[in-house]
Amino acid sequence: MKIAVLGGDGFVGWPTSLHLSDQGHEVHILDNLSRRWIDTELGVQSLTPMDSIQERTRVWHEVTGRRIHFHLLDLARDYDLLKGWLAEHKPDAIVHFAEQRAAPYSMKSDRHKNYTVNNNVNATHNLLNALVETGIDAHLVHLGTMGVYGYSTIGAAIPEGYLPVGIETMSGDTVTQEILYPSNPGSIYHMTKCLDQLLFAFYAKNDGLRITDLHQGIVWGTHTEQTRRHEQLINRFDYDGDYGTVLNRFLIQAAIGYPLTVHGTGGQTRAFIHIQDSVRCIDIALQNAPKAGEKVKIFNQMTETHRVRDLAEMVGKIAGAKVSYLPNPRKEAAENDLVVKNEQFLALGLNPITLKEGLLGEVIDVAKKYAYRVDRSRVPAVSAWTKDIARTIDRDPEGKRLKSVS
Amino acid sequence: MKIAVLGGDGFVGWPTSLHLSDQGHEVHILDNLSRRWIDTELGVQSLTPMDSIQERTRVWHEVTGRRIHFHLLDLARDYDLLKGWLAEHKPDAIVHFAEQRAAPYSMKSDRHKNYTVNNNVNATHNLLNALVETGIDAHLVHLGTMGVYGYSTIGAAIPEGYLPVGIETMSGDTVTQEILYPSNPGSIYHMTKCLDQLLFAFYAKNDGLRITDLHQGIVWGTHTEQTRRHEQLINRFDYDGDYGTVLNRFLIQAAIGYPLTVHGTGGQTRAFIHIQDSVRCIDIALQNAPKAGEKVKIFNQMTETHRVRDLAEMVGKIAGAKVSYLPNPRKEAAENDLVVKNEQFLALGLNPITLKEGLLGEVIDVAKKYAYRVDRSRVPAVSAWTKDIARTIDRDPEGKRLKSVS
Ligand SMILES: NC(=O)c1ccc[n+]([C@@H]2O[C@H](COP(=O)([O-])OP(=O)(O)OC[C@H]3O[C@@H](n4cnc5c(N)ncnc54)[C@H](O)[C@@H]3O)[C@@H](O)[C@H]2O)c1
Ligand SMILES: NC(=O)c1ccc[n+]([C@@H]2O[C@H](COP(=O)([O-])OP(=O)(O)OC[C@H]3O[C@@H](n4cnc5c(N)ncnc54)[C@H](O)[C@@H]3O)[C@@H](O)[C@H]2O)c1
Repeated sequence: MKIAVLGGDGFVGWPTSLHLSDQGHEVHILDNLSRRWIDTELGVQSLTPMDSIQERTRVWHEVTGRRIHFHLLDLARDYDLLKGWLAEHKPDAIVHFAEQRAAPYSMKSDRHKNYTVNNNVNATHNLLNALVETGIDAHLVHLGTMGVYGYSTIGAAIPEGYLPVGIETMSGDTVTQEILYPSNPGSIYHMTKCLDQLLFAFYAKNDGLRITDLHQGIVWGTHTEQTRRHEQLINRFDYDGDYGTVLNRFLIQAAIGYPLTVHGTGGQTRAFIHIQDSVRCIDIALQNAPKAGEKVKIFNQMTETHRVRDLAEMVGKIAGAKVSYLPNPRKEAAENDLVVKNEQFLALGLNPITLKEGLLGEVIDVAKKYAYRVDRSRVPAVSAWTKDIARTIDRDPEGKRLKSVS
Repeated sequence: MKIAVLGGDGFVGWPTSLHLSDQGHEVHILDNLSRRWIDTELGVQSLTPMDSIQERTRVWHEVTGRRIHFHLLDLARDYDLLKGWLAEHKPDAIVHFAEQRAAPYSMKSDRHKNYTVNNNVNATHNLLNALVETGIDAHLVHLGTMGVYGYSTIGAAIPEGYLPVGIETMSGDTVTQEILYPSNPGSIYHMTKCLDQLLFAFYAKNDGLRITDLHQGIVWGTHTEQTRRHEQLINRFDYDGDYGTVLNRFLIQAAIGYPLTVHGTGGQTRAFIHIQDSVRCIDIALQNAPKAGEKVKIFNQMTETHRVRDLAEMVGKIAGAKVSYLPNPRKEAAENDLVVKNEQFLALGLNPITLKEGLLGEVIDVAKKYAYRVDRSRVPAVSAWTKDIARTIDRDPEGKRLKSVS
């Protein structure tokens, strides 16, 4: 297949591109490299030393003889270029990672809120619009988030995208209709993924586009089979307060002897998946495209759930670190349950890597190995969900005064 | 109160501004006049001779001694100007009409789809974002549409915004949760209003913004008490295939001896409200603001429902016109029921103007009076929902070949 990987320079996009290229697909990365620019804006960098995309694809070719093509393109701003690119290359499938993906970054300031809404809504809508306009019948696989469901506290299992609902008719009967699981986003970032869902539903219905939406949990880990093949193929690893996701942050905190920062009670339950499994799921999704006219296929892409405080303890035990409880910069329920159905991927052959088996390797191979590159001042989470909350998170766990970066 | 009317130069915004000014409120219209530009783009004009906004506000002052202030501002593009304006003027309430509001226009071409998504999402999001940033606690009243619900064919009554849903928990109990009524938009335009809903829910939850969303039916009629006071205060009246709404189109078709154009079987049931009632509802909503921390207040703003073919017959009978059935440019169910709850406005004192009493006056006072200004070539609906459909709507009811304007 000819596959376009939008956002293929990112944390999940890069190993996905390598994996698909390794399978023999013709892979084209389209990326505006905005994520690298945001590193510059925030004054942070990947824990792992990450080369330019041009250099990484060169090394991949050297190691494997395979080519990954790179095209610098802003999906949100360059509608005409995108349309032209699609018309020229006619991909069979498209994997769409190209969005601003950090909830804290999306809540940093009014400018960041606007940027996230603009970038994400336009990237997705331009893509859908251009597919219809060019008449290209590519299967679109999008990376969504478990966060579209919000975090309910009623203890119901989250189905894969759709919920059957009984609606009472005028004649008194109850008719069951399947609806998109009601969304309840916890940040501007998460909200853009809820907007995406509505866009997908509309374009599938009106134009027969074939779309798969992967509601992904928090990705952890660094290496996949392909990134291990050469030091310069290494994946990015974010640990800062905005882009670092909770488990990767604990790992690096443990490695540098920083307290593991739990926000609030740590009673939040979250869903997780290893980067290698994430890549495999995308591959499986690509092999199971919906037909034209079918509704959007939705998978829950996660393999286990944990409470944040339990996770901190698990890492603390492996790495000998202590846990520090801080005020929560987010506005969210202090405690929530999370039971997620993921039967579809399991039925299609996914055999998950568990935290238990993978964690230790991650601590030794990645966190300890590159700990010398960590900037401690970038570890605290400084982006608050409201101005009132901002006033409560003015100290880091070591007692130092924090300054918001906005 | 000091009230900002965003989109106050439009069909509903203008009479609303006059009404609120007449009540003694200090009214500020913010509008980028994009609707006038779209008239130019499409080569159409209001049936009624409509003066510039500057001239209309001057006449209003002459007639009543009251001032309506006008500010040229693009909500979607001028975030910083908007923020500055809010910080300076600190309105007590904001009525938000400022969106691209024609479904056919939103489906005209890829450019029009992008424009509609961009304009509407950014207008609404910029406004919410700026309210939080400036800390201004204004009550925001937004004009949404009945179209967010989609047109169900199961015959259930549409509640006012929220639907109680039973969700089964892990322990086997069923817990009832109130969700936003599942959206099912029929066009890109309608979809933007569904996106708006999610934005409102988020900002009400996260930031305590006080928001009322009015899910409005199709507005018909031209005059309100205030627009009648001077010939130059007259409201706009759209009759073209993109902006003309179904009833107003029938009226003008009847007045010029053009067949009444029913698309498909005419079995679509739609909700209606007279412009005078629309203005009153907005006034009522302004007087019943939700409290901070309350969920978004949602009203169904409509007074009666009719099948399109029944409506055509009704107008045909009054005005002696014949009905012509044409292929439908929209992708939608051929027939649907529509039962809408609107108890909230009725309980708050709304006393609706019915089609039966108002129609004849509209035919004589407006349609016949200005029929000489009609451009017949602009009457057919030419914007198709898909490229396949476009090929089926190539003739007008008089048998002439149509050209799409995109
Ligand atoms: N990392 C996670 O834990 C996680 C969890 C759930 C969902 N996801 C989703 O998976 C996707 C990928 O996540 P990631 O962690 O790899 O993010 P990332 O930020 O590392 O990668 C996103 C890539 O998209 C590019 N991009 C952004 N906007 C673009 C635009 N307008 N035009 C072109 N390129 C653009 C960026 O430059 C970057 O290379 C995202 O959509 C994210 O929401 C990630
Ligand atoms: N007319 C109807 O039948 C109807 C039915 C249901 C809902 N509504 C809703 O009511 C609202 C008003 O409808 P209308 O019929 O008066 O529409 P309209 O097009 O006549 O008026 C909209 C006004 O908003 C302005 N505007 C648009 N984008 C703007 C921007 N970015 N910045 C500043 N101003 C901008 C336009 O110039 C115009 O004056 C709309 O939001 C519409 O969706 C209308």
